[in-house]
Amino acid sequence: MEFTVGQIAEVLRGAVEGDSTQRVDRLAKIEEAQAGSLSFLSNLKYEHYLYTTGATAVIVSRTLELKQPTQAALIRVDDPYTSFTTLLEFYQQATRTGKRGVEEPAYMGAGSRIGDNHYRGAFSYIGENCEIGQDVVIFPHVYIGDRCKIGDGTILYAGAKIYAETVIGARCTVHAGAVIGSDGFGFAPQPDGSYRTIPQIGNVVLEDNVSIGANATIDCATMGSTIIREGAKIDNLVQIAHNVEVGRHTVVASQSGVSGSTKIGDFCVLAGQTGLAGHLTLANRTTVTAQSGVGKSIKEEGVLLQGSPAFNLRDSLRSNAIFRRLPELERRLDELARKQAQPEKS
Amino acid sequence: MEFTVGQIAEVLRGAVEGDSTQRVDRLAKIEEAQAGSLSFLSNLKYEHYLYTTGATAVIVSRTLELKQPTQAALIRVDDPYTSFTTLLEFYQQATRTGKRGVEEPAYMGAGSRIGDNHYRGAFSYIGENCEIGQDVVIFPHVYIGDRCKIGDGTILYAGAKIYAETVIGARCTVHAGAVIGSDGFGFAPQPDGSYRTIPQIGNVVLEDNVSIGANATIDCATMGSTIIREGAKIDNLVQIAHNVEVGRHTVVASQSGVSGSTKIGDFCVLAGQTGLAGHLTLANRTTVTAQSGVGKSIKEEGVLLQGSPAFNLRDSLRSNAIFRRLPELERRLDELARKQAQPEKS
Amino acid sequence: MEFTVGQIAEVLRGAVEGDSTQRVDRLAKIEEAQAGSLSFLSNLKYEHYLYTTGATAVIVSRTLELKQPTQAALIRVDDPYTSFTTLLEFYQQATRTGKRGVEEPAYMGAGSRIGDNHYRGAFSYIGENCEIGQDVVIFPHVYIGDRCKIGDGTILYAGAKIYAETVIGARCTVHAGAVIGSDGFGFAPQPDGSYRTIPQIGNVVLEDNVSIGANATIDCATMGSTIIREGAKIDNLVQIAHNVEVGRHTVVASQSGVSGSTKIGDFCVLAGQTGLAGHLTLANRTTVTAQSGVGKSIKEEGVLLQGSPAFNLRDSLRSNAIFRRLPELERRLDELARKQAQPEKS
Repeated sequence: MEFTVGQIAEVLRGAVEGDSTQRVDRLAKIEEAQAGSLSFLSNLKYEHYLYTTGATAVIVSRTLELKQPTQAALIRVDDPYTSFTTLLEFYQQATRTGKRGVEEPAYMGAGSRIGDNHYRGAFSYIGENCEIGQDVVIFPHVYIGDRCKIGDGTILYAGAKIYAETVIGARCTVHAGAVIGSDGFGFAPQPDGSYRTIPQIGNVVLEDNVSIGANATIDCATMGSTIIREGAKIDNLVQIAHNVEVGRHTVVASQSGVSGSTKIGDFCVLAGQTGLAGHLTLANRTTVTAQSGVGKSIKEEGVLLQGSPAFNLRDSLRSNAIFRRLPELERRLDELARKQAQPEKS
Repeated sequence: MEFTVGQIAEVLRGAVEGDSTQRVDRLAKIEEAQAGSLSFLSNLKYEHYLYTTGATAVIVSRTLELKQPTQAALIRVDDPYTSFTTLLEFYQQATRTGKRGVEEPAYMGAGSRIGDNHYRGAFSYIGENCEIGQDVVIFPHVYIGDRCKIGDGTILYAGAKIYAETVIGARCTVHAGAVIGSDGFGFAPQPDGSYRTIPQIGNVVLEDNVSIGANATIDCATMGSTIIREGAKIDNLVQIAHNVEVGRHTVVASQSGVSGSTKIGDFCVLAGQTGLAGHLTLANRTTVTAQSGVGKSIKEEGVLLQGSPAFNLRDSLRSNAIFRRLPELERRLDELARKQAQPEKS
Repeated sequence: MEFTVGQIAEVLRGAVEGDSTQRVDRLAKIEEAQAGSLSFLSNLKYEHYLYTTGATAVIVSRTLELKQPTQAALIRVDDPYTSFTTLLEFYQQATRTGKRGVEEPAYMGAGSRIGDNHYRGAFSYIGENCEIGQDVVIFPHVYIGDRCKIGDGTILYAGAKIYAETVIGARCTVHAGAVIGSDGFGFAPQPDGSYRTIPQIGNVVLEDNVSIGANATIDCATMGSTIIREGAKIDNLVQIAHNVEVGRHTVVASQSGVSGSTKIGDFCVLAGQTGLAGHLTLANRTTVTAQSGVGKSIKEEGVLLQGSPAFNLRDSLRSNAIFRRLPELERRLDELARKQAQPEKS
């Protein structure tokens, strides 16, 4: 895709300074951009790059006062960051998620329906009696089990696996290899030490605008539903166990794990590689720092937690600082003891 | 699926109290159940729900003495929990794992055989010279490499990937996206700092009744076999490295990792996000708490471990308690030192 | 595959002692080998096994002086380990990665080209306008998005998922279920606490001789490229976030995670379950021990790090040793305080 600077300016309702007939064919950061690139300047901390960038054109604010002349053509807009994000979305839509039509062979079982304007990639599989909305994008090797419901505008990337009876809302994104609805890890210990498998007959519900990362796993409920609420963002390789609830607009970063039946509030942030024990409740706006492990419910909103086991971030930082000085602490203790034993020498 | 309360009672050899012609079409927890649901009461701690539940019918013990009248019909049986588990198994069999037949296109290579009463989903792949038992359920997008053996009644969920020469026992479950038999991470350092790949020609053996979680990875042995013994349960996103042995009825919870050549005994429990170093031996009935890292072999049976690096749980709990009070400890030390330096003022 | 001992010796340019007409059909460790096996002795620590092994033949050094007679035939070569590795490579090539041809149905989009001598497994998918070299092995269920480039001799195992515009070098290995090029985890917080998705339009570049483990995930850059440099080895279930760079011949062990925009130097080693925060720089030859979490850049080469948060390994070991003795430390402090308060009794 190649556009003139003038064409881009027209789309963004911006004004061109410089040669509007030059052509750009890619988007790039201002500090990395080369000829043919379109870039943007939003944070004035990076203004010095404007005068040295290799970009063919840069989107800048209408109010920016230049300190030097620029090689690059300028497209002046009200809000450069928003304008650039709009171009990013347009680019992504055009190149990656804008696919439509059916590639053969693709499989759809009896009784399933799918709305208009969809993509079904080759080797994608839809089971029986599914209800799938319009504008849905289903990449190759996606598996959708029987009796699933999927809302409008949702994108399922290659090899996403949706077990039977899963409910997915509108405008969700499920990345490649994610597994939604696998059995909860439920085994009843038997007198001989072996385990009997407890059937897991619940499902998973993703509300609207949920994002699930690559190779993440979300187990179905034993009974009832594991629920990921509206707007929650789950990163790659995260594990969500049976009967968990993740609150609205909560973010769970990569490789974190949430144990069975735990309820996470709204607007929470779990950083990478965190773990939550089972049957906990986390209040809204709880933040858990990376690699921490939470073993107790958090009732107060807005708490920051650190450590394994985790406690209050501020206290944890203080304990960690002293942990690094433990050899010194022990030496001082030895010294005190020595002096106390021989007070005459002190 | 809809049944009358009387039909359910007949299957369970139970006695109905109330209207046996009412219909139920789902199973639910007693505290969440709504009209049309069948529930159960086993733990008497939850007895108060019996009098308020929205369930249409509840399975209870023959010996239960009611404290109030109930809205729900009762089905009286000897052991409500076992009866309910039986219904769960029946439900799961009917809806999820009871599929039979071949959906086209499905691929099976030359020289491979599969027993009666199987399911092969669309886009499933079986390589050459495989021997697969009867009652085997192979969901869509499953990959089975050449020369694999798979026992009777095993279920492979969507997109499970079984490398060549893997041996899987009877009644195993492999969840979606699990990878069994990938190369061990074997690289010989060269004088220039680069690595030469050591070919990994061993395989993986899963004995009977093993369960492997979604997106778990089990590497093949360098030579010989990586072995998961009878009845072991491996959760989602677990990593089992080359030449590891996991003992009988051992449970490995989500996101745990076991390094190369480590041997885990029988009836062990590794909680979530634990790590074991390589070339260790863990005695039977070892328990490792969540997020712990074990760096030494454990010879005594029944040990509980915590921490990273892990040691005895009881001692670890005591050290952790003091860790949280380190600032206080340091303050007391400062105070002692101050007093000792100025004894006249104390 | 069955060979005589004499045939093996001929390939390795070795000399046979014993019956060269005996047949071997597998490779095994000397301590586990049974009749029909070919083994090797390189490290003389294991020499005692040579006299008791069940192997039919053993590859040994030309200079080895026997202390006893052996049951096994001997194949004498200059360097037993290198000779055996050559056989391992030959075996692996013959059995696993030596597949050629196209199994139907396989999908290749318009404008894509693939070089000679390739394998495309059934249900493999190649998008549009891809350029794929020669001797490339593409197992079943592999997904390759549009406009990807893949170098000569690269192997993609079953169900590997390569997003659009990924660039993969020569002689790379991508194991089953790995996801390369998934969206970076980029969300801009909005005033109401919800998140707007930032389109991720960059890609992933794997240079030559890179290995990616099963179910690992490597996110594309927001703009520009996430780069895995020549010879780097990434293990199973590792997470590499957007815009990360992994240096040449760096090893990242299983279940480690690297956050966005972090640059790891050459010849580094990240042990299992480690985590790196975002926007860091790690100097060449940095080593991070298992389960550690690095929150600061490392400028000096060759540093060893431990702990979460990580610091110098030697200091961390000392602090950890005292951590285990914290109850004793506190008891000593109590004792000192008691004595100081009652000096007359000491």
